[in-house]
Amino acid sequence: MTWRASVLTLFPEMFPGPLGISLAGKALGAGTWSLEAQDIRASATDKHRTVDDTPSGGGPGMVMRADILAKAIDAASPKDDPRPRLLMSPRGLPLTQARVRELSAGPGVVIVCGRFEGVDERIIAARNLKEISVGDYVLSGGEIGAFVLLDACVRLLPGVMGDEASGTEESFSDGLLEYPQYTRPPEFEGVSIPPVLTSGDHAKVAAWRRAEAEKLTATRRPDLPGQKGGKKA
Amino acid sequence: MTWRASVLTLFPEMFPGPLGISLAGKALGAGTWSLEAQDIRASATDKHRTVDDTPSGGGPGMVMRADILAKAIDAASPKDDPRPRLLMSPRGLPLTQARVRELSAGPGVVIVCGRFEGVDERIIAARNLKEISVGDYVLSGGEIGAFVLLDACVRLLPGVMGDEASGTEESFSDGLLEYPQYTRPPEFEGVSIPPVLTSGDHAKVAAWRRAEAEKLTATRRPDLPGQKGGKKA
Repeated sequence: MTWRASVLTLFPEMFPGPLGISLAGKALGAGTWSLEAQDIRASATDKHRTVDDTPSGGGPGMVMRADILAKAIDAASPKDDPRPRLLMSPRGLPLTQARVRELSAGPGVVIVCGRFEGVDERIIAARNLKEISVGDYVLSGGEIGAFVLLDACVRLLPGVMGDEASGTEESFSDGLLEYPQYTRPPEFEGVSIPPVLTSGDHAKVAAWRRAEAEKLTATRRPDLPGQKGGKKA
Repeated sequence: MTWRASVLTLFPEMFPGPLGISLAGKALGAGTWSLEAQDIRASATDKHRTVDDTPSGGGPGMVMRADILAKAIDAASPKDDPRPRLLMSPRGLPLTQARVRELSAGPGVVIVCGRFEGVDERIIAARNLKEISVGDYVLSGGEIGAFVLLDACVRLLPGVMGDEASGTEESFSDGLLEYPQYTRPPEFEGVSIPPVLTSGDHAKVAAWRRAEAEKLTATRRPDLPGQKGGKKA
């Protein structure tokens, strides 16, 4: 079954963009997933195709209107649409690999991309939008966040990655950063590959990788659950 | 002075992509920043233009070779290049708005986009790459992370946003999520704009917004520094 993505945006020409290339692009071509980018401006009702207005209470910038967004959302996602409706927003719950898994296991997503100072708060409850943030930084709009979310979900769809690559995933579900990787040549600018990796001793290799991953995680991301002594995910 | 971005990628055709449109695209056209996407494959030395090899010690997937990456990086960024060299990687330090500010205040960035199972660890020290993660999820490659980083930096370059929009920034430096926004129409599907916002009392509006931002932050992101009782950023 095709995993269906609908993106509501003021910049439909941005899509599929990077998602039309490489892994996601091949899967799009193969019909593993589908992508519709809908222009929010098509739901405007005046001749200037206005989608925003000044913030109530004052302040800089413009706010996207609830009534226009409602019209756009209803056109893309009828009441009985089983897909979750997401709003890309720095106010949202942070996107995690667990949430990515959950979304990719479902029927697809409807993504509303905010621009300007955000959207009228009333649309969030009225259309049950779930706010999702891709990180603690500010982007110029929700579109780049939508690329992140879609790329992360699509690579987990059945058949998109080879069986081989799925190993990567497992190390993430441990809550650990990945161990260091090496490949040929054996010596690079005077630095050799750690001898354990070429020892042929699989148990030693596995133990070394686990220890390196734990060391790296403890140093860089003591907040992750998988570090030594931390709780396991 | 132009802020210079060089991106090393196996998919140069992905760029500028979304960064050629809207805010970042206008700034690119105006020469506020420049973007070069360099094909890592151009640094391959065999006729198949190989850039990767199997992981030392075994395991799934392929690892990008240090020697090929070194050649690509040296071509894009000579030894005396003042720009930081970044590697987009889920193992990296999480990107924050503070780091975005710092990068956008500098001369630009050199970004290496990993693919497959990652890059040979030796290139990281050899070329002083700083690993940066855009979030705790797995993408199919570093390119989408590069879009995130570049979009976040470019919008902070002088002249890219109007003076008006810069207000948004300030609320983020408080370590608080943004307060709810409302705009016309006054009533939407039976829900009115909170009366305080149309009261004309600026002090009351400011107090309401601050209280709403604190409430939202405490509920959704108790980890952020700006919540009530937490340390201020």
